[in-house]
Amino acid sequence: MPIITLLTDFGLRDTFIGVMKGVIWSIAPNTQIVDLTHEIPAQRVVDGALAIDGAAPYFPAGTIHVCVVDPGVGTTRRPMLAAIGNQFFIGPDNGLFSLLIKKAEDLTTPPVYIALNKTHYWLPQVSNSFHGRDIFAPVAAHLANGVKIEELGDAFENPVLITIPVPQKTEDGWLGQVMQVDHFGNLVTNITREQLNPDTGVTISVKNTTINEVVATFGSKPAGELIAMFDSSGHLAISVVNGSAAERLGVSADEIVRLTLSSEQAS
Amino acid sequence: MPIITLLTDFGLRDTFIGVMKGVIWSIAPNTQIVDLTHEIPAQRVVDGALAIDGAAPYFPAGTIHVCVVDPGVGTTRRPMLAAIGNQFFIGPDNGLFSLLIKKAEDLTTPPVYIALNKTHYWLPQVSNSFHGRDIFAPVAAHLANGVKIEELGDAFENPVLITIPVPQKTEDGWLGQVMQVDHFGNLVTNITREQLNPDTGVTISVKNTTINEVVATFGSKPAGELIAMFDSSGHLAISVVNGSAAERLGVSADEIVRLTLSSEQAS
Amino acid sequence: MPIITLLTDFGLRDTFIGVMKGVIWSIAPNTQIVDLTHEIPAQRVVDGALAIDGAAPYFPAGTIHVCVVDPGVGTTRRPMLAAIGNQFFIGPDNGLFSLLIKKAEDLTTPPVYIALNKTHYWLPQVSNSFHGRDIFAPVAAHLANGVKIEELGDAFENPVLITIPVPQKTEDGWLGQVMQVDHFGNLVTNITREQLNPDTGVTISVKNTTINEVVATFGSKPAGELIAMFDSSGHLAISVVNGSAAERLGVSADEIVRLTLSSEQAS
Repeated sequence: MPIITLLTDFGLRDTFIGVMKGVIWSIAPNTQIVDLTHEIPAQRVVDGALAIDGAAPYFPAGTIHVCVVDPGVGTTRRPMLAAIGNQFFIGPDNGLFSLLIKKAEDLTTPPVYIALNKTHYWLPQVSNSFHGRDIFAPVAAHLANGVKIEELGDAFENPVLITIPVPQKTEDGWLGQVMQVDHFGNLVTNITREQLNPDTGVTISVKNTTINEVVATFGSKPAGELIAMFDSSGHLAISVVNGSAAERLGVSADEIVRLTLSSEQAS
Repeated sequence: MPIITLLTDFGLRDTFIGVMKGVIWSIAPNTQIVDLTHEIPAQRVVDGALAIDGAAPYFPAGTIHVCVVDPGVGTTRRPMLAAIGNQFFIGPDNGLFSLLIKKAEDLTTPPVYIALNKTHYWLPQVSNSFHGRDIFAPVAAHLANGVKIEELGDAFENPVLITIPVPQKTEDGWLGQVMQVDHFGNLVTNITREQLNPDTGVTISVKNTTINEVVATFGSKPAGELIAMFDSSGHLAISVVNGSAAERLGVSADEIVRLTLSSEQAS
Repeated sequence: MPIITLLTDFGLRDTFIGVMKGVIWSIAPNTQIVDLTHEIPAQRVVDGALAIDGAAPYFPAGTIHVCVVDPGVGTTRRPMLAAIGNQFFIGPDNGLFSLLIKKAEDLTTPPVYIALNKTHYWLPQVSNSFHGRDIFAPVAAHLANGVKIEELGDAFENPVLITIPVPQKTEDGWLGQVMQVDHFGNLVTNITREQLNPDTGVTISVKNTTINEVVATFGSKPAGELIAMFDSSGHLAISVVNGSAAERLGVSADEIVRLTLSSEQAS
């Protein structure tokens, strides 16, 4: 069965997500549908871009990802499909797929972008505020049914890209930032092993606190201790063992994180 | 595969919903199960009635909807099934299906109501507090397996109906109210295009604030602006572009919304 | 289709759970996946143990339960599989399956415990902080595909057991405690019919409040009244009819609940 994933900022309080699944199964009954998350902070396209970029590689070839973080719904922003590698991404052309598109530069087969403008693959009535239901879900379902991407709309170049903050080099290290606070209160930064070889000396500063080493695992330190480690997505995270770093430090997304490297590594 | 939807006020903190799915799949392994929402405010039958009425039309013929907002669980209130149009609705006979039943008056085939009283389609042990698990889930699963509705219980007439507030005509317009606050903080009212032709003059008043037009889409105004528009369910909603009207105005469900129509339309 | 359930403390804010499903479906496309809950309080192994013990009996033979409440992730704690009765339980060897294992003493077929140490059934890269994705999900998927449990690792004895508090006998009754507060604010205790025949006299004391009877159902008392009743899991629960006992009494998990039995029953 084809897999369709859903990633939105719609929350689970209303029936938005259930309705999208009803639309999909009305058109393509034999699909597996999976929720990636619906708790992207409202209208935070950057957070959506980070989430789909991190999650997509764990899905099989042919997976169709429907992503809706869409502050411009009902305006002229384009509904789009991106065929990247062996997966499909459907949503607004507002930068949500920026990270995936950037990484696709390394692929041998270039991505294909389709402006979704063939309205007979949409619901008959299209609202101005719920394209997840009216455009993206039905298009995903038709794609799952075997409709070719070129039938869904016209190819175009240059989808909207947004800038995802990357660490900046300083004299003695890097300036990064907290990108996301996860469910456990871990502060997930945009710093990776590219900036920081964990085997050499470093001081990590965030909001009046410093950490002087990168540990391998939560178990390296006793419960309650503040640590830095590379998390399961490969990013440097600031955590409290069995606790919440966000709460302990009073830190949320966008907070600056400064790396001061020891002279050997900084050179 | 038959589709069973679940709509409850059970939340997702406990294993209530997972257990209902286990019960369904133990009886009817080949069903798709979908969560409509489990965040109906506790015991708010009206909210449940609005939610299932809005969501059901997006599901295919044959869908079985299990709806449990059930302050009377364990009392004499009847467990029921309603066959309305080409779908099935299972839950307590407490008004949860009032809106669907009211609309069914327009259908050529009248609805059929079954009092679920054939206990061999229930779990062997029935608790006094969790009929979702013990009665409604197993009955839905047997129905999905092809059991006829008349085998599940005896037909009855006159299910319980509750009054869903509708807008009241005033001298110069209408008095409506906020029915629901959605995940984004939009205030969804009970006012529709029946009361308000968006092309003519109107003043919308809610809690010391007035709005003087109905816009077509969020994109009509800059971020942060308070607007009124018809939302994806066809109801007049009061919103803040890329923000929360509920937070901005300090308004929650049941708040009065007054429409003052320009003389042309009011006449 | 085989069923895989997921029970974690990961929450639904991040894509952790969606990613685990992607991993499972990449290996075993024809499985049904169901969320039991992802709102186990962070790192509370006891809560996880109670939840899986209560939910598992409602699933069919062959169900594979993946349970991850794992404060020791990345340390030497063992990843394990328990074959108990006709179901499978996969997760960290940290006591999460204690209640199931204790009850298995009554089964004619003894449980089998497997230390998951065959790394070719894991993802190629294993992080130090997300074994749900890297070890437990892929092992569950391979098991669903028909791999024998003995191929997944080596049998071992004596999995870690944790103590789940049980009621203590006093001179005139029992001392129990609140184990969980559910979504509705019901205080679910560790007291069962073993301690309390509901037909005889009892005084239930919790935090300066006393209740003098055990009722059969919410409907026995008017809305707003504080009651005690055996809930759908067979535990004594303290509830407010159509309200929240947790809020009313300001009580949370671990609060002491004292039963004073009338002389006939206490003797």
